[in-house]
Amino acid sequence: MGAFDEGRFNVELENGVNLGGCVELGFEEDPETVAIEDSVKILLQGLGEDVNREGLRKTPLRVAKALREGTRGYRQRVNDIVQGALFPEAGLETGIGHAGGAGGIVIVRDLDLFSYCECCLLPFQVKCHVGYVPSGQRVVGLSKLSRVADVFAKRLQDPQRLADEVCSALHSGIKPTGVAVVLQCLHIHFPNFESAFFDLNHQGWVKMQFTSGAGVFEDDKADIWGDFRSLLKFRGINFEKTCPRDSSYKCWCPSQAISKMGPANSGMVSAVASIIRSLGEDPLRNELLETPTRFVKWLMNFKKLHSFRAKLVSFWSQCEHHLLPFHGVVHIGYIRTEGVNPIGKSLLQSIVHFHGFKLQVQERLTRQIAETASSLLGGDVMVVVEANHACMISRGIEKFGSNTATVAVLGRFSTDLASREKFMQSIPNFPTAGE
Amino acid sequence: MGAFDEGRFNVELENGVNLGGCVELGFEEDPETVAIEDSVKILLQGLGEDVNREGLRKTPLRVAKALREGTRGYRQRVNDIVQGALFPEAGLETGIGHAGGAGGIVIVRDLDLFSYCECCLLPFQVKCHVGYVPSGQRVVGLSKLSRVADVFAKRLQDPQRLADEVCSALHSGIKPTGVAVVLQCLHIHFPNFESAFFDLNHQGWVKMQFTSGAGVFEDDKADIWGDFRSLLKFRGINFEKTCPRDSSYKCWCPSQAISKMGPANSGMVSAVASIIRSLGEDPLRNELLETPTRFVKWLMNFKKLHSFRAKLVSFWSQCEHHLLPFHGVVHIGYIRTEGVNPIGKSLLQSIVHFHGFKLQVQERLTRQIAETASSLLGGDVMVVVEANHACMISRGIEKFGSNTATVAVLGRFSTDLASREKFMQSIPNFPTAGE
Repeated sequence: MGAFDEGRFNVELENGVNLGGCVELGFEEDPETVAIEDSVKILLQGLGEDVNREGLRKTPLRVAKALREGTRGYRQRVNDIVQGALFPEAGLETGIGHAGGAGGIVIVRDLDLFSYCECCLLPFQVKCHVGYVPSGQRVVGLSKLSRVADVFAKRLQDPQRLADEVCSALHSGIKPTGVAVVLQCLHIHFPNFESAFFDLNHQGWVKMQFTSGAGVFEDDKADIWGDFRSLLKFRGINFEKTCPRDSSYKCWCPSQAISKMGPANSGMVSAVASIIRSLGEDPLRNELLETPTRFVKWLMNFKKLHSFRAKLVSFWSQCEHHLLPFHGVVHIGYIRTEGVNPIGKSLLQSIVHFHGFKLQVQERLTRQIAETASSLLGGDVMVVVEANHACMISRGIEKFGSNTATVAVLGRFSTDLASREKFMQSIPNFPTAGE
Repeated sequence: MGAFDEGRFNVELENGVNLGGCVELGFEEDPETVAIEDSVKILLQGLGEDVNREGLRKTPLRVAKALREGTRGYRQRVNDIVQGALFPEAGLETGIGHAGGAGGIVIVRDLDLFSYCECCLLPFQVKCHVGYVPSGQRVVGLSKLSRVADVFAKRLQDPQRLADEVCSALHSGIKPTGVAVVLQCLHIHFPNFESAFFDLNHQGWVKMQFTSGAGVFEDDKADIWGDFRSLLKFRGINFEKTCPRDSSYKCWCPSQAISKMGPANSGMVSAVASIIRSLGEDPLRNELLETPTRFVKWLMNFKKLHSFRAKLVSFWSQCEHHLLPFHGVVHIGYIRTEGVNPIGKSLLQSIVHFHGFKLQVQERLTRQIAETASSLLGGDVMVVVEANHACMISRGIEKFGSNTATVAVLGRFSTDLASREKFMQSIPNFPTAGE
């Protein structure tokens, strides 16, 4: 709990103060933070990095803070949020109909959340829709539906369990006629070397929808779900195809395939298990047993490469400041020079790949691609890198829609606006993550 | 600064801890908070409300917290944010081109912010795009561009000044070759009675774009703006039409027209001036002189009406928990009954209007519309209210894309799924705010 005791913290929750990071003030000296920092250093060393290199010096602390902030839900209690925000509100007389504090759906849609996948420790994005049917002549403050969802999102999660936990917490907190939760989840695909090389249709995202219902929503064939579905349709949200809840359900995380490939560095695996323990979780919980191995295998994708490899469509890289992925597309333009042969797209892709699969910052990646391309293509090269950074959504600032572009201009591109514009105009619009 | 001294606070800033609400922990007892609460009580009484009514009991505290949290930028310093996050990063040799830590644009797009309009005290939404050209072999952490923008957004602002302040703070903090800021701003239109009655094409939003540039971006005709514009175009952002900066510039806020109409309650006006002072601003600053009057006139739109009035297309209301606007559309369906005359759209609109223009919660508004409509149309009535709440974006949770639906079903609608579905299917998709 850092500097605050739980009693005080719950008072803040009840009064609706923003929780973003508050519990973490002063937590730099906490033994949990220090333990995570030590583990992150082991991971960096396992990647062949110098932990004292300028760009990496504060990385262990940043990673520790982001992880603790991103799992603050373990230290929050839901009842205090809800019970401080129940307001009396008249309903209709029995028999006339349903509205207000007695029946009539209330739904809040398009809540942006993120959570950490318990399978691989990478963040996943959630578009959350929560509804309930009031009863007992009372309604709950609308923002509390968001706050409660956030408490469970800020833990190591499986999306179906997240839906179930939010649903059941609201049901017991508000005591309404029923609660429904629909989650649209996006998990980044694993940029595993093998799949990146051999699967040219490799998709960037795994998308899946999850639902949970309690009370009148418990039966997923109940009429009331029809109303809920209609209210989502107004916003263009279609959730017919949800993940099955029966025995055919398998974890959605693409890391499961990867963990079966060969052994991982045991020191790094122990370090990740120790991080999980420091976050307040039990690394021996069944769903977490393989997580350290999977995370290490993900991380090892970003060990420095020593030779060029084959084709790649989009690029993936790992931000060296936060040890979180960023991914996107690279556009390379060049002016053909007499005596220099044009090079194929596959070689350009290999260059991107070579510089992408290591700990990086986007600015450096852009420069390095430009330098290498220029050595092959003559001096007139321009590179635009468009990327989404997980660190921009899964840390304090939580800027869900943001995205970054970086530019390198060499030779004539650096002085000739017309050439730059011509190249820029040839670039198609960049799709938003998950579209 | 609440419980923390400034030194400590700046350390947290530097290390990148989320600021959301942190400075506000323990601020309930601050004399500023108590003073704002007292002023809010005066405003509620001026609206003819009972400040001890259950739904309003905690409203003064909620409003005080939201306002202080939403203006926390007055208590933050930019240099500490930036200087802790400058990283050495190689550029290209002089003469070869521009990339990395020496030239080459870096741009972060689509940062969602909100700010309080200094003209009327209502929140406005900002889509912020920030770019800079690195120099001196160093780059700044990408998230810092967002944090700096947020420091200035969290003040009473004019959007052009907001753009200029963000630009100049980044320019002096990073010391790059240049900085560019583009803001796309949305201000809610004033639901002034007169315009709502007489202007059927009354638009919900005022949209305007603002730019600011420093260094190589200072001249807004410089070539480098072409590159910046191209990078925005990839995301479908077109900012050709920006607000002029010359003497023809007038404040965009639609409240300016309203303040000229008749006098306002002087006790309420003084209360708002006192709130502005408690937030750390000078109510005698030129741009703020008329603000209390404008805010009071806005607020008085929500004094209880005592008779039906004429046509209205969309509805506006004021959340009684946070004293912030919510607005949207109401859909009313009914089953025609033998012997009951159908009523015109204008009367239905008047009903919505009557119940909307007061302190409200969306659930109650929905029930009240349904009850009144049912008394005119027979017992079989269904009402769906779709709304966006300013309190969901301008307080701690900052859920920018979220939106709320509430439903009331009377008579046959409450038992007959087919009727409900038929009505729901007749409702067109609800456009997102500002689209």
